[in-house]
Formats: sequence, C-alpha cells, structure tokens
Amino acid sequence: MQSSNRTVNVGLIGLGTVGGGVFRLIQSHAARYLETRGIDLRISRACGLDEGRARELGVTPAQFTTDWRDIVDDPSIDIVVEVIGGEHPATEIFTESFAHGKHVVSANKALLGRHMEELAGAAHAAGVQLRCEASCGGGIPIVDTLERDLSGNTVLAIAGIVNGTTNYILSRMADEGLGYEEVLADAQRLGYAEADPSADVDGFDAASKIAILSSIGFATRITTDDVFMQGIRTISAEDIEAARDLGFAIKMLAIGRRTDEGADVRVHPAMIPATHPLAGVSGAMNAVYVVGDAVGETMFYGAGAGAFPTASAVVGDVLALAEDISAGVKPLPEPEPFPRQMPVRSIEDLMTRYYVRLLPGDGAAAAATETLAAHGVPVGETIARGDGSVVLVTDTCREGDMAAALGALAAPDAAAQVANAIRIENIAAWTEGVEAN
Amino acid sequence: MQSSNRTVNVGLIGLGTVGGGVFRLIQSHAARYLETRGIDLRISRACGLDEGRARELGVTPAQFTTDWRDIVDDPSIDIVVEVIGGEHPATEIFTESFAHGKHVVSANKALLGRHMEELAGAAHAAGVQLRCEASCGGGIPIVDTLERDLSGNTVLAIAGIVNGTTNYILSRMADEGLGYEEVLADAQRLGYAEADPSADVDGFDAASKIAILSSIGFATRITTDDVFMQGIRTISAEDIEAARDLGFAIKMLAIGRRTDEGADVRVHPAMIPATHPLAGVSGAMNAVYVVGDAVGETMFYGAGAGAFPTASAVVGDVLALAEDISAGVKPLPEPEPFPRQMPVRSIEDLMTRYYVRLLPGDGAAAAATETLAAHGVPVGETIARGDGSVVLVTDTCREGDMAAALGALAAPDAAAQVANAIRIENIAAWTEGVEAN
Repeated sequence: MQSSNRTVNVGLIGLGTVGGGVFRLIQSHAARYLETRGIDLRISRACGLDEGRARELGVTPAQFTTDWRDIVDDPSIDIVVEVIGGEHPATEIFTESFAHGKHVVSANKALLGRHMEELAGAAHAAGVQLRCEASCGGGIPIVDTLERDLSGNTVLAIAGIVNGTTNYILSRMADEGLGYEEVLADAQRLGYAEADPSADVDGFDAASKIAILSSIGFATRITTDDVFMQGIRTISAEDIEAARDLGFAIKMLAIGRRTDEGADVRVHPAMIPATHPLAGVSGAMNAVYVVGDAVGETMFYGAGAGAFPTASAVVGDVLALAEDISAGVKPLPEPEPFPRQMPVRSIEDLMTRYYVRLLPGDGAAAAATETLAAHGVPVGETIARGDGSVVLVTDTCREGDMAAALGALAAPDAAAQVANAIRIENIAAWTEGVEAN
Repeated sequence: MQSSNRTVNVGLIGLGTVGGGVFRLIQSHAARYLETRGIDLRISRACGLDEGRARELGVTPAQFTTDWRDIVDDPSIDIVVEVIGGEHPATEIFTESFAHGKHVVSANKALLGRHMEELAGAAHAAGVQLRCEASCGGGIPIVDTLERDLSGNTVLAIAGIVNGTTNYILSRMADEGLGYEEVLADAQRLGYAEADPSADVDGFDAASKIAILSSIGFATRITTDDVFMQGIRTISAEDIEAARDLGFAIKMLAIGRRTDEGADVRVHPAMIPATHPLAGVSGAMNAVYVVGDAVGETMFYGAGAGAFPTASAVVGDVLALAEDISAGVKPLPEPEPFPRQMPVRSIEDLMTRYYVRLLPGDGAAAAATETLAAHGVPVGETIARGDGSVVLVTDTCREGDMAAALGALAAPDAAAQVANAIRIENIAAWTEGVEAN
C-alpha cells in the first residue's frame, strides 16, 4: 500500500442513472484506489430527490441530502460532481461551487454545449477546475485525450458517432432492412430511445457534444447554436440499401473541422466508405475519430452511455483532481478559455458530394439532372434502381447551390420528385494537413 | 494570448526518426503552445551522433551536442527526452537525469519492458516523473489512458495490435492471398519490415509493449520475460483462407488479462471473429482494446509508428509536465511502482479453442482426432478443405494438453501431420467481470 495523504471528499449531486453509477463505482473501488494509487476517496455527501432510491444505492442517512446547497456550502468537500443535467440549478451548482473554491466534474453536455466559455472562465477566475470527460462519448476518454494527450498536435478534424440512439437505429435498419419508424418503436420499447426521441434523432444531443469537442480541440468558442443540424427521420431502408450498393454506410456523424475559412461544425446523416473504421461502429456504441497534424488518424471507441461507462469517465476526472489534492497539491486552475476566436463557417459554403434518390417517374432523372446543373450542381453518376427509382450521385458541389436546387425540385410543378438527399462525406478532407512522415 | 510563466527547457537525446520528429514538431508548434496554453516550450539542447543530420533538422550549433552528459548535467534543463532506444546508455541517461532532478520522457519499449519497475522506482525516489506514452502504440494515447482516464476501473483485459509490421504482413496476406515470405520480402523493400525481421515477426516488440501496458493496467510488475511469445512465420495463405471460411481473421495479438490465477500475458497469432473491431484494423495501423469493469469495452486506434505520430505521444508527455513546470508547480513525483505483485499464470493453464490444419493424408483426420482426444483435447468440428487438407476445430482445452498432443503428432511415425495449429481466442473471456448496467 502506498502512503496515503489526506482524504479527498466528493459531493455528489444527482442520484439518477449516472449518479447511481458514480456512487456505486466509488464505493466498490475505494479500497483499490487507496491500495494502488494511495488516494483515499470518499463520497461525503450525496444529493438526490428520492430518499428511497438513495437508500437502495447504499447512501447513508449522514450522506444523504435533498438540498444541493448542503454540498456546495460544505467546507470539507473538495470536488463537486454534478450529474443532474439541465440548465438550472446546474448553473448555480457550478458557480457556487467555484465561489467556494471547489472543483466541478460534470456530465452536463447540454449546459456545456451552450455555456462552456462562461463556465470555464468562472472556474479559471476562481482558481479551480471544471472537468467534463463524461459530457461527450460516455466512457470513451476523449475530452482529456484532446486536452492533454494530443495537445502537441494541431487538431484538424473530429468526426464522431456520439449518439447511441441514432447509431442503434441506423445499425438495425442496415442489418435487418427495416424502416425508421419500425426500429424507432422497437428502440423505444427496449429503452434505447426516449418516448420523445427528438433530442437524439434530430441531432440536438450530438450537436452539444461536437460543440464541446470542437471548442476543446480547436481551442475556440463553439456553441451548440453554431452547429448545423439535420436528423435521421428521413433515412429509409431504400437509402441504406442504395448506399451499400455504392460502397457506403450511412452514419449519423458529428463533425468539426478546422478550415482556412473557419470551423466547419455540423451534425447530419452522412455516407462514408463501408471500409472506414467509423462504418464498423454498430449498435449503441460510440466512436470519435480525431485527426491531428502530427498523429494523423486516430479513433476512440466505447460505450457512449450507461451508468457504469459514464461513471468511469466521471471518476477518471475525480481521480485526476484527487491525485493532486491527496498529495496536498492544489490542482492547476482551469486555463483561461479560448484565447482565440475562430469564425464559424456557414453550412452554405460546405463543398460536398450528394446522393439524391428520386421517386420513380417518367423522365425524372433527366429533369432532376437538368435542374441540378442549372444550379451549378453537376451529376456525376446516374443509377437506375430495381424498384424503378433513380439515384443520382453529384460531383463536389457547394451546399448552398445544392440547397437551392433541392428547393426548386420541391416545387409542386417540379418534373422530378426527390425522395431523399444525403451528403457523401469527403473523408479525404479530414486528413488534409497531416504531416508526411 | 495567455500569460506565460517561465520557459520550460527540454533536452532531446536522439535525433533519429523519432527524435527528428520531436524536434520538428516542437519547433513548428511552439508558438501555438504558447498562444493556446501559455506554455513556452524550448528545446535548449539536442544530442545526436550525426551533425549533418542535426543541421538538416534545423538544430543550431548552440543546441547541438554529441555528448548526452551535456544534457543531463545542464541545470537549466527540466525534461529529458530519451529517444535513442537500446539499454545503454539509455539506462544511464534515465538514472543520471533523475539524479539531477529532471523528468524523463521516453519511447524506449525494450528497456521499459524489462526494467520499468526499477526505473519508475528510481524516478519515484528522486521525486520526478518517468513518462512513456510513446513506448506503446506509437501515437495512440494508451499509457496515459490506462494510468489516468480509465483509472476508476479495474482493468480486466488489454488486447492489442501493437506491431505494425506483423499487422501489415497479415493484412496483405489476407487481402491479396499471398504467402508470408512473399509479403515479408515486399514489406522489407517498402521499409515496413527490417532486414532482420525477428524483433517484429517473432513477437519481441509486441511482448515489450504488452509487458508495459499490463504493468500499468494491472498495477503489477510484468516484464517482457513474463510474456509467452509465438511469431507469425508459420501462418500461411491457407490458414488465412480457412480462418475466413470459419468467420475469423488472424491477427497478431498482444494480450494481457487479469485472471483469478494471475496475469495471463501472451503474444501470438490468434483467430478472432471477423466482426470484432480489432479484425478491422488493417495495414500498419495499431489498436489497443481495453476492457474495464466499469467502462466495458473500449478501443484506441491510430498509427503505431512513424516520426510524427510517435512525436505526438512524446510531446503530449512533455506538455503534461510542462503545464505544471510552466506555472511554477513541481509535477507530482512518479508514484511508487507496483504496490502489489500479481502472479503470472503459466501459458500451460490457458484454456482455449484451437484450429488445427492437417496435411492431406489417408485417415489423417481420424488419427489426429484420436491423438488429440487421448490428450484430453476434444475435437468439435472437422472440415474437409477443397485442397484435400482437413481442418479440425477443438473444443475449449488446456494449452498444456494441446502442446502434448501436438508433440505426439510431430513424432516421425505419427499417422497425421499438422500443417499449423492456431489459437481461437476466447474473446468472451475478455469481458468477464464487466459491471452490468
């Protein structure tokens, strides 16, 4: 056993799925942390709304409180873990914890996606840390990896499957040839999707995460509002089958790219080559692809949700702080956030290829090709499908031109009807700027 | 720009492929580290044997030295980067740097695979750090991930493709149906394999890496000598094809498992399901699969070698130290290594299934099945191949029994001749002990 220094006291706010996981992980592993790392970690208070649930987890009456102020006001507490989510009272928990000199570990992607700069700035001013590994990618170490392990690099691109619900739905659609609605209903029944699935299927959740990851990776302020967002509701079994025939998989990607014109940040379903490592990420698993100018292509894979995987990320953050605190060293304060401000590029300026599936109709392919060309979108390939529909694959075009063309094709009197249009991601652009070895 | 504190001085020992990458990465990114993180990082001295090479890299006469003692004796240097490899003078560079209060960042897998405990102990005693992210998996953040991000977990298993040469050879054999010798020759021509390929193809390199990763992951002393090792020289195009027909890929794996009987550490070609994430890692890329009891299954993928990917790992370690030093804080000393000693399990006690390919011969399958059964190895499946050979797939058996059976089948008068025997990895065992969510 290593010589232990002082006990590190954690105040846990939130005893839901993640909070319960954090409580159980620390309780069951505390002896090991002491033995292998000399860190005496203790949950001194735990705050929840349901005392019965707390009892079941093993929270003692002395630990339990229903008032988060009991935790942020407790001078013995070193680290506050906020796992209640939402904006309020999470914001107040952050700011009051900082005011009391406490570090905060949080999984709150929605709050951080919108307010990371202000909150990190408040931590910096107070001389404490704000850590949020669990806010992105569940148990996958990705925040610390960007902040620390890859910090020698200029990060060029981040492309993640960061929403388990949409990856589960698209994977099952691909594996079983089923339609979106059918799989969604099953996912809801099995607990992979919420009764109101919008936060997942429309991309809000992924947008928060790519805002956080891009902010850290590019050292600039990116908020959820900066992220272009499109969901998966229109993806059909036909699209997935046609994509497969073209050698692609359809994945819901959260993308952040550093470009000469600014940050390109977006969440949408995209076609990627079936051989790409991200294409093999199936079910509810998550993965984040990161390209650095020195390291080149990397990928980090794991469970993006769940009580214990998320708790793993939370406790990793807690232990990173506890290592110093235990040794009597004050952890370095949060760095001043985002010394530079990178502009955010408009989605209109994205250069990409497009898959366009047309509904069966006489002369539809020729008419659509003409309309696209008239808007500056050249069609490179025309594929007649067995069901009478036609798939057009465009050459690289400007998103704004494509949007205008799709607008024209949506007119009631248009000579061709578009069933769906999906971006074919230019993965070669992700690695532009990698150093040659 | 963030307020910078004091300059952090690095002494670089080694100006070969990796050292050159480190020099160029720091030189080209120093302004960015200062701007985004407030860290003023400088290479104050650089030691190499070839002054012409040093000049080409941009090393100035004032920086350059051919004597590593000029670096370890220089009181202004905070961090020594050792990238010369080998045992001597690397060992002396470590110990004298520690004696002078300097942290060491090293990529030296051979030395650390054998002597991590002594060297980490010396760093601990001197109150400095020994960091070795670049020793395993090139640019993939895996050492820090195990030490820090996943430290809330009890690590259950580590399974890596950690040698690019063997993965390149096996991938090309699989993709092109070529034989081992043919691909090896091509790999040597292209610079993917050394003229003497033994360190790679016989498993020594991978054994060093899994010794380091297992030591860190399991917090116990494991050395290269503890690792069972078998190379890929006997793998044939027929084996790869037969494996594919069984739904498997053949990969050179470095495996470390925590079992009730001790650490199970080994390097050998193994069959894994073709759908497993590790099976999709192709060419010279590396990946490390890590299973933690809380996080479950994770995988970390990237370039396992090359000047810039390896430099990314080295500089990540340097910046982790520089963050503290720059702020006037002394980095925490290396923890006391390995408070516990886990026994190392004998390979004889491994329980695994086996693929056994027999040379064509009358009654070979029946005879081999009988011999295997006589040694306690039940055959579960017998597959006649188109070329007249037969593949037997055993049920789970004890490695020691299998070795005895293979010994008997190697006798000159044996009624069946074994072309090759390859372990079918029990991947279900990797995840035994993961917490249910």
